[in-house]
Amino acid sequence: MHFLKELDQKDSMKIGRQLHAFAAELYPICRSITGDGIRRTLAMIQDRIPLQISEVPTGTSVFDWTVPKEWNIRDAYIKDSRGQRVVDFQRHNLHIVNYSVPVRATLSLSELQPHLHTLSEYPDWIPYRTSYYRENWGFCLSHKQMLALENGDYEVCIDSSLEEGNLTYGECYLPGRSSEEVLVSCHACHPSLANDNLSGLTVATSLAQFLSGRPLRYSYRFLFIPGTIGAITWLARNLESVGRIRHGLVLTGIGDAGAFHYKKSRRGDAEIDRAAAHVLRHSGEPSEVLEFSPYGYDERQYCSPGFNLPVGCLMRSVWGTFPEYHTSADNLDFIRPQQLAQSLRVCASIFDVLENNRSYLNQNPCCEPQLGKRNLYCSTGGDSIGAEINARLWVLNFSDGERSLLDIAERSGLPFEAIRDAAELLCENGLLAEIPGRT
Amino acid sequence: MHFLKELDQKDSMKIGRQLHAFAAELYPICRSITGDGIRRTLAMIQDRIPLQISEVPTGTSVFDWTVPKEWNIRDAYIKDSRGQRVVDFQRHNLHIVNYSVPVRATLSLSELQPHLHTLSEYPDWIPYRTSYYRENWGFCLSHKQMLALENGDYEVCIDSSLEEGNLTYGECYLPGRSSEEVLVSCHACHPSLANDNLSGLTVATSLAQFLSGRPLRYSYRFLFIPGTIGAITWLARNLESVGRIRHGLVLTGIGDAGAFHYKKSRRGDAEIDRAAAHVLRHSGEPSEVLEFSPYGYDERQYCSPGFNLPVGCLMRSVWGTFPEYHTSADNLDFIRPQQLAQSLRVCASIFDVLENNRSYLNQNPCCEPQLGKRNLYCSTGGDSIGAEINARLWVLNFSDGERSLLDIAERSGLPFEAIRDAAELLCENGLLAEIPGRT
Amino acid sequence: MHFLKELDQKDSMKIGRQLHAFAAELYPICRSITGDGIRRTLAMIQDRIPLQISEVPTGTSVFDWTVPKEWNIRDAYIKDSRGQRVVDFQRHNLHIVNYSVPVRATLSLSELQPHLHTLSEYPDWIPYRTSYYRENWGFCLSHKQMLALENGDYEVCIDSSLEEGNLTYGECYLPGRSSEEVLVSCHACHPSLANDNLSGLTVATSLAQFLSGRPLRYSYRFLFIPGTIGAITWLARNLESVGRIRHGLVLTGIGDAGAFHYKKSRRGDAEIDRAAAHVLRHSGEPSEVLEFSPYGYDERQYCSPGFNLPVGCLMRSVWGTFPEYHTSADNLDFIRPQQLAQSLRVCASIFDVLENNRSYLNQNPCCEPQLGKRNLYCSTGGDSIGAEINARLWVLNFSDGERSLLDIAERSGLPFEAIRDAAELLCENGLLAEIPGRT
Repeated sequence: MHFLKELDQKDSMKIGRQLHAFAAELYPICRSITGDGIRRTLAMIQDRIPLQISEVPTGTSVFDWTVPKEWNIRDAYIKDSRGQRVVDFQRHNLHIVNYSVPVRATLSLSELQPHLHTLSEYPDWIPYRTSYYRENWGFCLSHKQMLALENGDYEVCIDSSLEEGNLTYGECYLPGRSSEEVLVSCHACHPSLANDNLSGLTVATSLAQFLSGRPLRYSYRFLFIPGTIGAITWLARNLESVGRIRHGLVLTGIGDAGAFHYKKSRRGDAEIDRAAAHVLRHSGEPSEVLEFSPYGYDERQYCSPGFNLPVGCLMRSVWGTFPEYHTSADNLDFIRPQQLAQSLRVCASIFDVLENNRSYLNQNPCCEPQLGKRNLYCSTGGDSIGAEINARLWVLNFSDGERSLLDIAERSGLPFEAIRDAAELLCENGLLAEIPGRT
Repeated sequence: MHFLKELDQKDSMKIGRQLHAFAAELYPICRSITGDGIRRTLAMIQDRIPLQISEVPTGTSVFDWTVPKEWNIRDAYIKDSRGQRVVDFQRHNLHIVNYSVPVRATLSLSELQPHLHTLSEYPDWIPYRTSYYRENWGFCLSHKQMLALENGDYEVCIDSSLEEGNLTYGECYLPGRSSEEVLVSCHACHPSLANDNLSGLTVATSLAQFLSGRPLRYSYRFLFIPGTIGAITWLARNLESVGRIRHGLVLTGIGDAGAFHYKKSRRGDAEIDRAAAHVLRHSGEPSEVLEFSPYGYDERQYCSPGFNLPVGCLMRSVWGTFPEYHTSADNLDFIRPQQLAQSLRVCASIFDVLENNRSYLNQNPCCEPQLGKRNLYCSTGGDSIGAEINARLWVLNFSDGERSLLDIAERSGLPFEAIRDAAELLCENGLLAEIPGRT
Repeated sequence: MHFLKELDQKDSMKIGRQLHAFAAELYPICRSITGDGIRRTLAMIQDRIPLQISEVPTGTSVFDWTVPKEWNIRDAYIKDSRGQRVVDFQRHNLHIVNYSVPVRATLSLSELQPHLHTLSEYPDWIPYRTSYYRENWGFCLSHKQMLALENGDYEVCIDSSLEEGNLTYGECYLPGRSSEEVLVSCHACHPSLANDNLSGLTVATSLAQFLSGRPLRYSYRFLFIPGTIGAITWLARNLESVGRIRHGLVLTGIGDAGAFHYKKSRRGDAEIDRAAAHVLRHSGEPSEVLEFSPYGYDERQYCSPGFNLPVGCLMRSVWGTFPEYHTSADNLDFIRPQQLAQSLRVCASIFDVLENNRSYLNQNPCCEPQLGKRNLYCSTGGDSIGAEINARLWVLNFSDGERSLLDIAERSGLPFEAIRDAAELLCENGLLAEIPGRT
């Protein structure tokens, strides 16, 4: 399978527009780590790819954690003394501190103040705040809105529920020839935030659509889960699957215009780490490879020392480094069709490396084979050889049973596709033989 | 023990002034590799810390060397024809070539000349010269002094003795819970030279005072010895102790205003090398780590291939790289209270790392433990986590039985104290357990 | 043997002029991969060094290749309608595409055109073209010459033969104390091209002359062979010798004024790689060390995975990176006596390292031995030690049975000769003993 070649036959701008359109559909939903927001989101993904949805009851123990109560919200507002909604959940779901307990009360401005969150540096933006594991309530609003609040009494209403229920997640499993798996994991718990992480949800959905029905070397498992508690719950319930995860990628924040960042797995030299670094280096896009650190997204759980899975994290701008992060400014304008399509392409390129990385054995290891008599060498002499012949020489010289195609690509500085194409041609000519059961 | 925290509660400038005052007391003494000068110096150190003083007779074989005759000097001068002392040992003990044999003679200027040493580039300074192992005599004087000498006869007197006697050195042993030792070695054989090495003597004495009476993980051994022959003699007489030296530091030239330099042990990756490099990197002071080389101070002997001990050398300006080196300009103005106090602090920080570097095992290795329910995580979401929580995540993720706290500090880029504090807090919360018997 | 010291007693400019004069003798001959041109060349080398010449019949199988037909040429030209030779092999042997089949024909300009090769960017230069393994014919001429050709009929004559015959190569074997070999390989198949590779032929010949009759640690084998097919043929016929090759060097393009380039063997850390890099670093000449790549000269064959011999390639300007490459501008002016002599010196320095690289054991490993009593240490103190004493300390400290002199030279940053001289002096003084059978 040459995913990239197939993908590059499609209209990249059209793909980008489709990704953005799907993000726009998902944007208004008020998601959280449990409840109907994430359920509705998973149902919309299920319309596109085969998704198995799991419900895990409140109170279930998952390692050191417990599945929390289910949270749902219908309405929330702050009304001033004239009965005007000065803060209104119906206008923007970031206005409510996610997981706020139900409240109905009348409070003076000074009593209300401790429950209000704003960003003074960005006075037009609403911050995103949560209080999952400590019962609390609050509103988020723009700093301008807060400054406009006059003294007086305010009616506060949070029409939410926090009750026994379930934690919901979805997974899409695409079987390949091998039971070894490629894991793709996205958090699906953020409300109206576009880059973090509708970008991940839409690209992952599109990747699953793209792979679906194609012959695959590896099996692929796409997880759409609430952050942290979702990864912990999935790991606790799937201990037998964990050993099959050969490569993994957390996808998040891949819709903005920033440079690509790949954060390595805790292992630091896993094949996914080398594949991602290789693809980014040859992508023509600005990019940076980051060492593993224990703070971040769900790679924190996959790379906890008891699992130490080969799971990295692909981002564009890194969380916390751009002002729009976790604010209402991370909206549908902040992500762009072209960037979403490029991110899809980078993921497909990484899968391409994983699917095609193999080890071969040069069948004529003593001296070069005579490529000229097989029309694999142009030989008027004096001219420099071309890139294709160069790739053939690299593959022949280093296919010694010790090195994979990715090893050879890295050592030669040539892109993986050039090395793979050379290997396939040399195989056809009987000059190379695949070493079975080896990467 | 958290040495640094305790030290930082004291008045750093007061410590600096005390160090400098002790250097000033020691400065006038005419020390050499044997004799009453070093004896008197050791007695003054003994007034402050428990010091065991050893006397090793002339002629004792120590490896390839022999303990030399003992040298003492009472007076020395050159008188001109008018009976004026034109060069006078009583004015500065650098005027005499150290280990000069007794002389009483009258010589013409041209006969005298071969015995005179000056520095034409620094015409006001007296050089420091020695002739330990070849019997000889000479005077050192400023270039200006020499130019002022007129033709005529000069009366030369060196009232010294070079006789059977002893080589003297002192050691201060502070027992800790482990019989494994930290060695601190200073040469104590230089006459009126302040940075080289009264700085080392005073800081080492002060360190021993500071450690004395405190609970210690390691035992500490401070050596105050004549350079080269002293280290060789100590090693030859303490072969059974050598195996207990787990970490070691030669202290020299740590009073001037130059940047810190740590010269690694011959091993290059000993724990002392990593601890010193780590401390200097986080010290906020300019510093440089140097690879081992076989020329230098007594690390030459400790790191000879038959011992190959993990002993590095802490300096500020490196010997031979500054003009004051081995001249009368290396005086009490060349070393400064603040620099001495800083050097003491760096040493204490290094000991802090050695004392506290341990390996722990994460007791919840599968996924992160829920720090929030233990009040170890602030969790309104949206905000970036603080440095303390970050340190906890690093310690948890990498306490996998393979890595020490110093390993984790290096990998995370965080200072050792932050990592150690996190480990202690996680231990108290039952999330971490020390792995006994491991660094 | 200290080759460099002996060489430096000779007049370097005289050596350079002799090398250039020999290149000038060889220059006019029309060499190819077979035939009388290379035979005559080998005979001229045989006048200077003992050379065993082998003839391998057309049709002999050598690995994946077959020894081709033998090519010889007597005359070739293109005559215009007035009977003027407008392109004339007698003027420059690059005018003929090497290995052109015999032709006698009259052609219009447009029929002739596909058989003409020029360089439009360098309109005065004749390119060098070959067609060894595909029967073809053609002429190379300057772009100016081609532009001057008028329409009309041209008489084309190539008086060549391509027939059953032999492939010819020469080898010079100089036995040393060990049967392990140093291989020096040069291609001898290029016609009137000076740097590529008369520079290699002349320097290799001179090296063999220089080594001849001297006591040698290693045996030396110099190969003068047609490129590619010659190396393949030699390897196929000498499988039993291959295992004896301990170090190897392909010499090519070492007469021009460019910086030295050493391309490492496929192993990348072979002793020859480290010796060559060390010598170039200390040569005082600009130089660069290149990683192995599978395109280049005959190191391609020696470093094919079935052999993986420790053979690097020494060049000045790298093939294909300078405009004169494979054109008539690579002539006797392009190579210079001084550069040829310097290249010879670099080769001799590399051999010096190989011949003298040994491991020694410090006989006084505990503490430094007392160098002063053996007059190996100047000791007035205060002064910095000199480079010679420094080298002695390095050799003593690191002669621990684990490190060779080259290891010590690299670690110390000192030139190999200084380390070797120190080792020899320390041996004479009984402070060091050679470890037999170790590099």
